[in-house]
Amino acid sequence: MQEQEAGLVLSSVLTKGIQDPEDVMPRARYRDLGLAIGRIPTGRYNAITDVDGVLVGHTTLVHDSPRIARTGVTVVVPREGDIWNDNAFCGCFSFNGNGEMTGIPWIEESGMLGSIIGITNTHQVGLVRDALVEYAIDNGYAKSWLLPVVAETYDGFLNDIDAFHVTKEHVFQAIASASGGTPAEGCVGGGTGMICHDFKGGIGTSSRLVETRSGRFTVGALVQANYGYGARADLRVDGVPVGMEIGPDVTPLPRSTRTGGSIIIIVATDAPLLPVQCRRLATRATVGLARAGGSGHNGSGDIFLAFSTGNHVTGADEPLAVRMLPLDHIDPLFDATAEAVEESIINALTSAETMTGLNGRTAHALPLDELERVVRKYRS
Amino acid sequence: MQEQEAGLVLSSVLTKGIQDPEDVMPRARYRDLGLAIGRIPTGRYNAITDVDGVLVGHTTLVHDSPRIARTGVTVVVPREGDIWNDNAFCGCFSFNGNGEMTGIPWIEESGMLGSIIGITNTHQVGLVRDALVEYAIDNGYAKSWLLPVVAETYDGFLNDIDAFHVTKEHVFQAIASASGGTPAEGCVGGGTGMICHDFKGGIGTSSRLVETRSGRFTVGALVQANYGYGARADLRVDGVPVGMEIGPDVTPLPRSTRTGGSIIIIVATDAPLLPVQCRRLATRATVGLARAGGSGHNGSGDIFLAFSTGNHVTGADEPLAVRMLPLDHIDPLFDATAEAVEESIINALTSAETMTGLNGRTAHALPLDELERVVRKYRS
Amino acid sequence: MQEQEAGLVLSSVLTKGIQDPEDVMPRARYRDLGLAIGRIPTGRYNAITDVDGVLVGHTTLVHDSPRIARTGVTVVVPREGDIWNDNAFCGCFSFNGNGEMTGIPWIEESGMLGSIIGITNTHQVGLVRDALVEYAIDNGYAKSWLLPVVAETYDGFLNDIDAFHVTKEHVFQAIASASGGTPAEGCVGGGTGMICHDFKGGIGTSSRLVETRSGRFTVGALVQANYGYGARADLRVDGVPVGMEIGPDVTPLPRSTRTGGSIIIIVATDAPLLPVQCRRLATRATVGLARAGGSGHNGSGDIFLAFSTGNHVTGADEPLAVRMLPLDHIDPLFDATAEAVEESIINALTSAETMTGLNGRTAHALPLDELERVVRKYRS
Amino acid sequence: MQEQEAGLVLSSVLTKGIQDPEDVMPRARYRDLGLAIGRIPTGRYNAITDVDGVLVGHTTLVHDSPRIARTGVTVVVPREGDIWNDNAFCGCFSFNGNGEMTGIPWIEESGMLGSIIGITNTHQVGLVRDALVEYAIDNGYAKSWLLPVVAETYDGFLNDIDAFHVTKEHVFQAIASASGGTPAEGCVGGGTGMICHDFKGGIGTSSRLVETRSGRFTVGALVQANYGYGARADLRVDGVPVGMEIGPDVTPLPRSTRTGGSIIIIVATDAPLLPVQCRRLATRATVGLARAGGSGHNGSGDIFLAFSTGNHVTGADEPLAVRMLPLDHIDPLFDATAEAVEESIINALTSAETMTGLNGRTAHALPLDELERVVRKYRS
Repeated sequence: MQEQEAGLVLSSVLTKGIQDPEDVMPRARYRDLGLAIGRIPTGRYNAITDVDGVLVGHTTLVHDSPRIARTGVTVVVPREGDIWNDNAFCGCFSFNGNGEMTGIPWIEESGMLGSIIGITNTHQVGLVRDALVEYAIDNGYAKSWLLPVVAETYDGFLNDIDAFHVTKEHVFQAIASASGGTPAEGCVGGGTGMICHDFKGGIGTSSRLVETRSGRFTVGALVQANYGYGARADLRVDGVPVGMEIGPDVTPLPRSTRTGGSIIIIVATDAPLLPVQCRRLATRATVGLARAGGSGHNGSGDIFLAFSTGNHVTGADEPLAVRMLPLDHIDPLFDATAEAVEESIINALTSAETMTGLNGRTAHALPLDELERVVRKYRS
Repeated sequence: MQEQEAGLVLSSVLTKGIQDPEDVMPRARYRDLGLAIGRIPTGRYNAITDVDGVLVGHTTLVHDSPRIARTGVTVVVPREGDIWNDNAFCGCFSFNGNGEMTGIPWIEESGMLGSIIGITNTHQVGLVRDALVEYAIDNGYAKSWLLPVVAETYDGFLNDIDAFHVTKEHVFQAIASASGGTPAEGCVGGGTGMICHDFKGGIGTSSRLVETRSGRFTVGALVQANYGYGARADLRVDGVPVGMEIGPDVTPLPRSTRTGGSIIIIVATDAPLLPVQCRRLATRATVGLARAGGSGHNGSGDIFLAFSTGNHVTGADEPLAVRMLPLDHIDPLFDATAEAVEESIINALTSAETMTGLNGRTAHALPLDELERVVRKYRS
Repeated sequence: MQEQEAGLVLSSVLTKGIQDPEDVMPRARYRDLGLAIGRIPTGRYNAITDVDGVLVGHTTLVHDSPRIARTGVTVVVPREGDIWNDNAFCGCFSFNGNGEMTGIPWIEESGMLGSIIGITNTHQVGLVRDALVEYAIDNGYAKSWLLPVVAETYDGFLNDIDAFHVTKEHVFQAIASASGGTPAEGCVGGGTGMICHDFKGGIGTSSRLVETRSGRFTVGALVQANYGYGARADLRVDGVPVGMEIGPDVTPLPRSTRTGGSIIIIVATDAPLLPVQCRRLATRATVGLARAGGSGHNGSGDIFLAFSTGNHVTGADEPLAVRMLPLDHIDPLFDATAEAVEESIINALTSAETMTGLNGRTAHALPLDELERVVRKYRS
Repeated sequence: MQEQEAGLVLSSVLTKGIQDPEDVMPRARYRDLGLAIGRIPTGRYNAITDVDGVLVGHTTLVHDSPRIARTGVTVVVPREGDIWNDNAFCGCFSFNGNGEMTGIPWIEESGMLGSIIGITNTHQVGLVRDALVEYAIDNGYAKSWLLPVVAETYDGFLNDIDAFHVTKEHVFQAIASASGGTPAEGCVGGGTGMICHDFKGGIGTSSRLVETRSGRFTVGALVQANYGYGARADLRVDGVPVGMEIGPDVTPLPRSTRTGGSIIIIVATDAPLLPVQCRRLATRATVGLARAGGSGHNGSGDIFLAFSTGNHVTGADEPLAVRMLPLDHIDPLFDATAEAVEESIINALTSAETMTGLNGRTAHALPLDELERVVRKYRS
């Protein structure tokens, strides 16, 4: 195992799961299949990193001893890391709150994002949260107390979650590895052990370039999709009932009786939005989720955060000059959020590989050939 | 005009708009086309009235002089009218708040619905609200102050809204006419002058029968759909991009430059839900809306209310015994809400007839033959 | 005045109630007694009108036939009336929502105030709301739909509220009469028939001038106080338990068995606050209320709105430049809000005169000599 | 001391700070001075533990090497620890959200409390949160994922907070030590290093017995008070401006330039409240806070949670029978919450001892003789 070789942690990004022998099909993004979601053009990388200054990093933990790990941590780093003192406006929305996102009281009070965002497994939200505090202290970012934003989904089907695999060093490593360009997707970082509509899930991302009367802006999304346990049939791709068409006979279901699952959605934009407008964007993530088949089941933690890099909020001795997108210019950003979120979910599915984990359980990847066949059948 | 012939006001239900000569095609509900939304069976009437004790009434105002009226008022009457003293638990959610629903502070504070629900045009929410107060006083329901729930969408494209056509007598009439069975849909009541995805909109309803571990319950929805102005292309029916396929060459667009529109959604159930659970149902209306093409545009008032008849809340001298659906039994109700809302929107479209109104403007009905053709093309 | 000619209703402002023969003591503001609330200096008028451009108008209805009227309407007019198109940022908070404030969904969605604010009695919120729509149409302010903000408290103890005395003309008259300077307080406008801690209540106002690191700003409050029914003992003035000290033997209680009552609080400032910051100010109104003895009883509608004139939000074709008070400069505004609200409540009490109304019921004024005696006893 | 014996940790409760030589005055609860807050009788212990089944435990960390610790963790244990599977209805309210309370999304979604509640310092919320997860796993309480509730205030003035002193064993120890009866107050547990209105702060508790039309119930509060930094003058005790009267000449100010501070308030009751009613109780904590001098300054995390033991929510195969206090019976509980919260804050002040910590900084205790003198002066 690389982790043992490295003496500490698995390198991020590189190791993406333990594959079934049969699963030799290379994975891809949805657009690699020649298909697309929506009508708005994507950014260069079709990723949240298309928003200037937004970086993504992962630490992926996959090993079988001493206890089985299929977990990790993903970080979304605004302003290339300078977010601690150059805060960004943000807003959040909980569509179904059976999950955790720390930092919500201050976001709702002030509309401010003042930390790197972490995403991990349910039982280690606390560790990642405190590790972000420690990171900020160690790197001289902490001027006073800190209220970092960390969210989670539950990977206990494949991961021995009670082993508490993630350490603060894993968090520091994810930050150190954060970069722009096309982020790794699928079984990486916090998404390593996740399941989505009874296929293998994980991390996905997408972006859109929108034209508004105030100019051109970018909207990017990143999701940690662990959604729709026991609800294969609900999966839709661009309106096509893919989950109904790819049955257990084609791709076996995970042998789980648990319902629920969760999805964390991070939306970023460079449009100059006020906090109240960021919250509107976060709420619109619901549209993309709903179109992909989500309906916020009871066991699900569907918690969304949107931030804008279009304004800078720092200490000052006079009123700050900020810019605000006029209210009636915002619709293209709403549409873009819906599309980017929907495609992020699909990208998580198309990127994730079949994985076997705890107790020999397997979550099978969405078969790309079947996906393409079904979508083309409905759309031709 | 018929209204003058009738002595005062048009009788409810019967008159459903002034039709284009060309529009002789009879209107229908979506299921009359042999199509269906979702996988859950409907109630007997496929209407909100399938929830025991829920009645619907309309007063429809369509006349051209002295000023052009294409408006009205719709009432949803819980507990066959006994709601004033036998309150129901409820909750609400605003997906995009560019609209009005009175009564929200008390709903959020107490989770109580204590009035008949009215829906009308934007400029007369106040009149309908005060008329409900007066109705309660006149009929001996008012023990103290009242905070009725009245919502609206904007019909100023077809209706001379500044003429303030609706009177309190129209409200009383709508209540008097309220009944069970299959409600009139389309260009009736508050929905008379509405537009939806650049087709003629209005009132629509649908229901689902759900099996839960706590037994069988009914979920019904009623919508006043005035949605997606300038957004024909967004309309989807069961995932099929109907709005993209029925272009302006087939069905002309309304000659409006205004964007926005709104939708009011009322969800009713007989499942024994607490207020916090009703709010969850109201939030799930977003799923049905999103699947039909909505994304909560800036100019839209997308405000949803859900109530449960499954508990009775009256004055008492000891703690009230109420029942609560266990948290993990609620998913079928969420799915049912999504399906019933989506089908209600489609029923509004399939039921509404082409209408010409203010300044000779016309909103054309969704052509049923085209609708059927497109859906069958994608679904075969 | 038209109303005097009609021999029916009193003109606004001038007549403040029908006095007991014994109640010949002139009324005063709290500071006229040589006392003060808090440590921050007041504005010139010690009124909400100290915020530049904010006007206040009242229409007061006091007559005994054909039915007894002790009611009216008060308007708070931001930007000297230009608020319809030059919107102001605002936020609201419901401490106890047994009341009505229209316009909340749009305030929460957008943080925008786009109308004159009305305050009236509970049963005519709707009339005043629609009248504001009509006013905007008639005066060319209405570019599209309008969602005016109108709130209420219940005056049914003294006023024959079921007679629906207020007309749209009364609303127009209140707007026409709106002015700067020291507003009338006590038994005027919407506050005419109100009761507060078992003394006669009504309208009160106060202001503070605050020094911040961003400069000097004004915070003003206006309340319609109908609070603490059946809770004389809870009244506190500057921490002194006045309500305990002025018992029924000194000032009789209103012969009401009803509990509850309500308070509407409007806070205005010229500090450049974003919507999320306005909401914080609205929430801080709770502090002033709590210090005066309020605890948000079940029957109370304690709904607060704060707006800032420090930014202008109009239509635009590019991002709007707005200013934001740095987060850590806001504390003086919080303290000022608490003080101004507390003093507004006390001013309502000290200004209101004893009034007899429906069914011969009387609400007695807070005796100023007793008030001064009690406060000086505790504070010397 | 056990810590030295164990080489690891201080025993809980026993060690309450390092005292100034001059501070030999024994500490007391407010009522020990012969004074009282409010008019409602207290429970037997005048503590949150008067609510049947509620236990309180502390682990207190006070040592000077290797790094200075003035911190700890406090736990509130509902249902004598059986809360994990026998959930309680609850609600929360953030008066000023510059703080953290984990678990909020699920509380707002479901109204359920399903964990022991932890309170600690700002930088270790995560550790305590994950430790509660681990505790539940280790003790067989965890049936699936867990979303524990942990809150914090900032003790970085006296405590070397960046040393991350608290360990999971400290959390387990606090739980093991939890008991009924009179909890330790002042410089204990999470409150060890806290400051309140420029006096030494910490943990305080109080309770009330209320008579309602539904019978007698108990309301208890527990606060971790770290409030009013730089705002000595704001402190009020029963309306008396104590903070103005006990100046820096009498009791020195902490040499801090930081403003802010925070307060966490937990309210418990055995009244059968629904989630929406629990939230109302949480909101009423604001009243007690405001009366003690709080106004939710920008730097403050004023986050409140209320839970009811009056209903039991467990897994079931049919609707659960629960009881609901009639809406109009709740006012005594609101008044009781305000009183218990105010007295809890005062008890934190009167119980806490002068403490010297990081960098030789000292926070001086509120002098009880001065307190008694000032209150009696104003109240005689």
